[in-house]
Amino acid sequence: MILTVTLNTALDLTYSVPALVPHTSHRVRETSERPGGKGLNVARVLSALGHDTVVTGFAGGPTGALLRELLATAAPSAAAPVTDALVTVAGNTRRTIAVADRTTGDTTQLNEPGPQIAAGEWAALLSRYEELLTGADAVALCGSLPPGIHVSAYAELVRAARAAKVPVLLDTSGEPLRRGIAARPDLIKPNTEELAQLTGAREPARATRDARRRGAHGVIASLGPDGLLALVREGGWRARPPASVQGNPTGAGDSAVAGLLSGLVEGLSWPDRLRRAVALSTATVLSPTAGDFDRAAYEELLPRVVIEEHAPAA
Amino acid sequence: MILTVTLNTALDLTYSVPALVPHTSHRVRETSERPGGKGLNVARVLSALGHDTVVTGFAGGPTGALLRELLATAAPSAAAPVTDALVTVAGNTRRTIAVADRTTGDTTQLNEPGPQIAAGEWAALLSRYEELLTGADAVALCGSLPPGIHVSAYAELVRAARAAKVPVLLDTSGEPLRRGIAARPDLIKPNTEELAQLTGAREPARATRDARRRGAHGVIASLGPDGLLALVREGGWRARPPASVQGNPTGAGDSAVAGLLSGLVEGLSWPDRLRRAVALSTATVLSPTAGDFDRAAYEELLPRVVIEEHAPAA
Repeated sequence: MILTVTLNTALDLTYSVPALVPHTSHRVRETSERPGGKGLNVARVLSALGHDTVVTGFAGGPTGALLRELLATAAPSAAAPVTDALVTVAGNTRRTIAVADRTTGDTTQLNEPGPQIAAGEWAALLSRYEELLTGADAVALCGSLPPGIHVSAYAELVRAARAAKVPVLLDTSGEPLRRGIAARPDLIKPNTEELAQLTGAREPARATRDARRRGAHGVIASLGPDGLLALVREGGWRARPPASVQGNPTGAGDSAVAGLLSGLVEGLSWPDRLRRAVALSTATVLSPTAGDFDRAAYEELLPRVVIEEHAPAA
Repeated sequence: MILTVTLNTALDLTYSVPALVPHTSHRVRETSERPGGKGLNVARVLSALGHDTVVTGFAGGPTGALLRELLATAAPSAAAPVTDALVTVAGNTRRTIAVADRTTGDTTQLNEPGPQIAAGEWAALLSRYEELLTGADAVALCGSLPPGIHVSAYAELVRAARAAKVPVLLDTSGEPLRRGIAARPDLIKPNTEELAQLTGAREPARATRDARRRGAHGVIASLGPDGLLALVREGGWRARPPASVQGNPTGAGDSAVAGLLSGLVEGLSWPDRLRRAVALSTATVLSPTAGDFDRAAYEELLPRVVIEEHAPAA
């Protein structure tokens, strides 16, 4: 079983409009809603790949109830269950609104902050998490912290995973990433912006080395359309999609996390894990539904991902 | 008791952002949510004025449940109850999102379409409505039609009110207004845009006369910041606020409806009804919360509204 943790789950609403014009009124003809937050997106992709997945984190209020109801309705692509082990909180789960502009293809994002988490609720999450770790083959800690959660929360979760000997991937940003890295996670998956913020270095190879020195055992830097740069105990690789693609990059990073974790649990070599991660995230950009991946594209891309050894300068 | 009908109720969300910039991401720090749809707004103002009010219309799904929960939590300004007589439907009540731009004070509106209403649900509403009419002193029919409702729905509701001898105000637009007028409502309250769409005439006095000829016994045309133009059986009046004001006009029209209906039920003269309607809608523009009215401003404005007789040319 793979465990994903989403402390700030969200109900993701997508509104399609011909064009977003500020200070006017829009009739939204197409809407979609689904469970969101990075860890829930990772779980959906893992489930489509056939991995039993358990999700934990917080959900509360009417929006939380709706999110759980939607989570219980399996996606048509699901090949394995996603089990809801979310902790119920008093506050209301946040909504995110993506306004998709049909003219330009661009998206405008409005994100609510999320519920205030009480000390007792955090304690309940910690104890649920420690229980779940006993059955987990790997764990992903994903996304932003809701209000009320201390900034070292991810460091605490990383330490618990390491104590339980469960490989742990941390995918967050800013101060929670900085603190989390110090607890020595097995993997982090920052994009170049997050890496630069963490290390001060804008050059990816250099920033990746810096990030490892700060405590991460392995760093998989996302270079957006240029693929991934991996620096791990076993070596260094660049993985690139066979061609650049046009589409909506929402969720591409979460699909990469699902590729890395599933590959780890299946005991794939690093090049094969990276191949899967790049093919999945490229197939996510190509999918008409934001955050889903196009399975046919995934299978077609997988053997064509370009892997190069990357010898990091000291 | 005053009855208001809102066929397309809504959960109104307001997001405050420093500035809405298309194709970027926004962290929303201030959010508010409340029951909406024109008839629910009218009911809130009637309740603040001390009138027992019953609301009917449709509500369904998780958003409908949340709307009813919020409706049950009386507003602090309520002086009389708002009774929930909404008909539960299978579809999900719509959300509306108002993105308020703190820099310019302007608002960007995103409105979901609303649930599909089945024939049996419409029949249930009709029977609930006819029951409620037996105890009503006046009824307001407000807002747009949800998908699945036939375009003559308001005409049907107007006829039922007239058969029950309950004064009926119709506040809608487009084809539902055109059809509704033919059923001879006591009052309509179009703005100049809606009047022009209905009659083809852009000049308000002329459009108002045309609208009466189409079947409305009385027409109260909203001239926005310039107040109201009334043409009713008893005569014609212009009612203007004492000074022009700056603020958010959301809900100003609904406050005017509440002023007109409460004045009718209390047996006020037409000049006094118009005074109240203009003072309430001006006090709504002045309120910091969209759709609420500023009570102190209302009381201060009331004696200062300027009423002129307006002798309509034939």
